[in-house]
Amino acid sequence: MSDIDRIRAAARRLDGHARRTPLLSSPFLDRIAGRRVLIKPECLQHTGSFKYRGARAALSALDEATRAKGVLAYSSGNHAQGVALAAKEFGVPAVIVMPMDAPQLKIANTRAQGAEVVPYDRAGGESREEVCAAIEAERELTLIKPFDEPEVIAGQGTCGLEIAEDARAMGIERADVLVCCGGGGFTSGVALACEAEAPGLTVRPVEPEGFDDVTRSLASGKIETNATHSGNICDAILSPRAGDITFPIMHRLCGPGLVVSEEECLAAMGLAFQRLKLVAEPGGAVALAAALFRASEIEGDTVICTISGGNVDASVFARALATLLPPEGTP
Amino acid sequence: MSDIDRIRAAARRLDGHARRTPLLSSPFLDRIAGRRVLIKPECLQHTGSFKYRGARAALSALDEATRAKGVLAYSSGNHAQGVALAAKEFGVPAVIVMPMDAPQLKIANTRAQGAEVVPYDRAGGESREEVCAAIEAERELTLIKPFDEPEVIAGQGTCGLEIAEDARAMGIERADVLVCCGGGGFTSGVALACEAEAPGLTVRPVEPEGFDDVTRSLASGKIETNATHSGNICDAILSPRAGDITFPIMHRLCGPGLVVSEEECLAAMGLAFQRLKLVAEPGGAVALAAALFRASEIEGDTVICTISGGNVDASVFARALATLLPPEGTP
Repeated sequence: MSDIDRIRAAARRLDGHARRTPLLSSPFLDRIAGRRVLIKPECLQHTGSFKYRGARAALSALDEATRAKGVLAYSSGNHAQGVALAAKEFGVPAVIVMPMDAPQLKIANTRAQGAEVVPYDRAGGESREEVCAAIEAERELTLIKPFDEPEVIAGQGTCGLEIAEDARAMGIERADVLVCCGGGGFTSGVALACEAEAPGLTVRPVEPEGFDDVTRSLASGKIETNATHSGNICDAILSPRAGDITFPIMHRLCGPGLVVSEEECLAAMGLAFQRLKLVAEPGGAVALAAALFRASEIEGDTVICTISGGNVDASVFARALATLLPPEGTP
Repeated sequence: MSDIDRIRAAARRLDGHARRTPLLSSPFLDRIAGRRVLIKPECLQHTGSFKYRGARAALSALDEATRAKGVLAYSSGNHAQGVALAAKEFGVPAVIVMPMDAPQLKIANTRAQGAEVVPYDRAGGESREEVCAAIEAERELTLIKPFDEPEVIAGQGTCGLEIAEDARAMGIERADVLVCCGGGGFTSGVALACEAEAPGLTVRPVEPEGFDDVTRSLASGKIETNATHSGNICDAILSPRAGDITFPIMHRLCGPGLVVSEEECLAAMGLAFQRLKLVAEPGGAVALAAALFRASEIEGDTVICTISGGNVDASVFARALATLLPPEGTP
C-alpha cells in the first residue's frame, strides 16, 4: 500500500472517533507574525494531542485476535494517553512504560484511561527498550511505537489531510506548514498527506533549542542525535533522534527546520491563551512560536501551524501567563 | 417572521462568517458531574464569544444605506468586540460606549478591531443610555442593543441550532442545556432554536450568586432586578435585569435557573483548562460550573453546557489555575 493510501485508510477508520479539528486564526496573531497565521488546534483532539490519531489508527489496523491480547507502548505522556484511550475504546489491555520523571498529570491521565503504567528510571539510566522487551517476553502484547511505525505515521498524517482540505477550500495554494517535531511521526505523516493533496504546502519541523536533531539532520542529510535527553520544558518532543522510517520521508519532503527558545514557547503559549482561547503545552507551542517570532525564516503570505498538545501542569502554564502580565511596578 | 424563521435566516447570513463550534467532552468531567457533559465552546468563536453571532446577524439585517452610516453599541466587553468585528467586516464605522472600569483587555481588543471607544463613568453614576442618546442625536448611527433586540437574539440563537443538530446526530432526545445568562439574549435565542429543533432539550439559565435576577424572575413570573451591578468576577453577565423581549421567551421556554459561586466558576475554569484545553472567562464558565458542581439540581443522564467567553486577564486566570495546584506544603 502506498503511503497516501495508508493515510486515507487510516482516515476512514478514524472517522467518527478522532475529532475533525478546524483551522483557527486571530487578527492579533497575524499582526505579530506579519502574515496570515492559521492554527490547527490538535490540543482539542481526544487526550489533548494528535497522538490519539496515530494510536487509534495503529490499534484499528491490528487483526482482532492480536489486538485482544493487548498493547504495549513507551511514552513520556501524550502517546501514552492516546494508546490508553484507544485500547479502552477497543476494550483491550494497555501497558505503558513511562519515565518516573514524566509529568505527573500525564501519568495520572494515562492511568485514568485504564492503562497499567510501568515506571522506569530514565534519569538513572534504565533502558525503556529493555523494560519493554521484558514485558513483551512475559506477556503477548503488541508494541505500538510512538513514531517510527507506518500505521502511527498514517494516523497522525490524517491531520495533514484535513489541513490540505481546508487550505484548498480557503484558496491557499502555497504556505509553510510548521509542525511541532519530536521523532518525526507527525511531521512525516503531515508531509506525506500534503505531498499528495496540497503539493504547494511545504512542511517544516519546529524544535526547541538544544533538541534540534531533525533540523540538523535535514541540513546534513543524515540522522543526527541530541546531546541531552531532558532538561527542557518541551517534554513532549525531546526524542533523541528521528526514526529510520520518519527521517527519509522528512528528508525527501520537508523544508528546513526551525528552532525556538523556551522563552518563545512560553510567549506563544500566552498568546494562544489570550488570542485563541486555547491551552498549549510547551512542546505543542513550538510551531506557533516559530510562526510568531521567527517570521524572517518563513516565506509567503500564509503560514499554517499545529498546536499539538495541551497537557500542561498549572505551574508551568502560570509561567506562560506571566509573559502577558505587565512588569511589576507598571502603573 | 416567526422567531425560528428569523434564527434560520440569521444562520444563512452567518454561514461562512461565524465559526461552527463542535460539542466537546472529557471522561474526567463526566466523572465529576456523574453524567455525560457536552460542551459547546463558544470561546472558540470569533472575538471569543457568541456575541459575534448576534452582532453579525444584526448588522447584516440592516439595509445597506443605514449600515453604511455606522453602528453604535454599549457593552462592558464581549458585545463590544462582536460589534466592532462585524462593523470592520462590513467596512462601516462602529462607536462603542464602554464603562471605564471594563477589563482593559476588552477595551484594547475593541479598539484593535477598529472601533471608536467612548468611555463613561459607570461607577460615578453616568448613564450609558444618556451617553448613547447624545451620540445618536449627533451622528446618524444605528444602535445595536446587546440582548433585547430580535436580530441579536436570532443571531445568538444560531448556536442553539447547532446544539440541536449535534444532539440529534448523537441520538440525544432529552437533556438540560445550561446557558451562561446575563440579559437573556443568548438564553432566549438558544431556547427558541431548541423549541423548534429539539423540543426534548430544556434550556436553563445559569447566573453568579448575587446576580441571579433571571433565576428569581423565572420563579416569580415577573422581571426581578439585581441589587448591585458590579463586584463579581463574572463581569460579562452582570446585567441588572432581563429584557422586555427576552424575559417572556425565557419564561415560556426555560427550566429553573441555576446559581453558582465565584469559587465554583474559578474551579470550572481550571477544569476547562486541564480537561478541555480551553480558556473560559468567569462569566463564560458559570454553565460548566453548574454542570459540575450543582449536579443534584440537574436531571437526566446528559447535560449540555455553553462556554461562552474567553476574554480573561492573565491575573484572573492565574486564580483559576491555583484551584488545580496542590496546597502549599503538600509533598
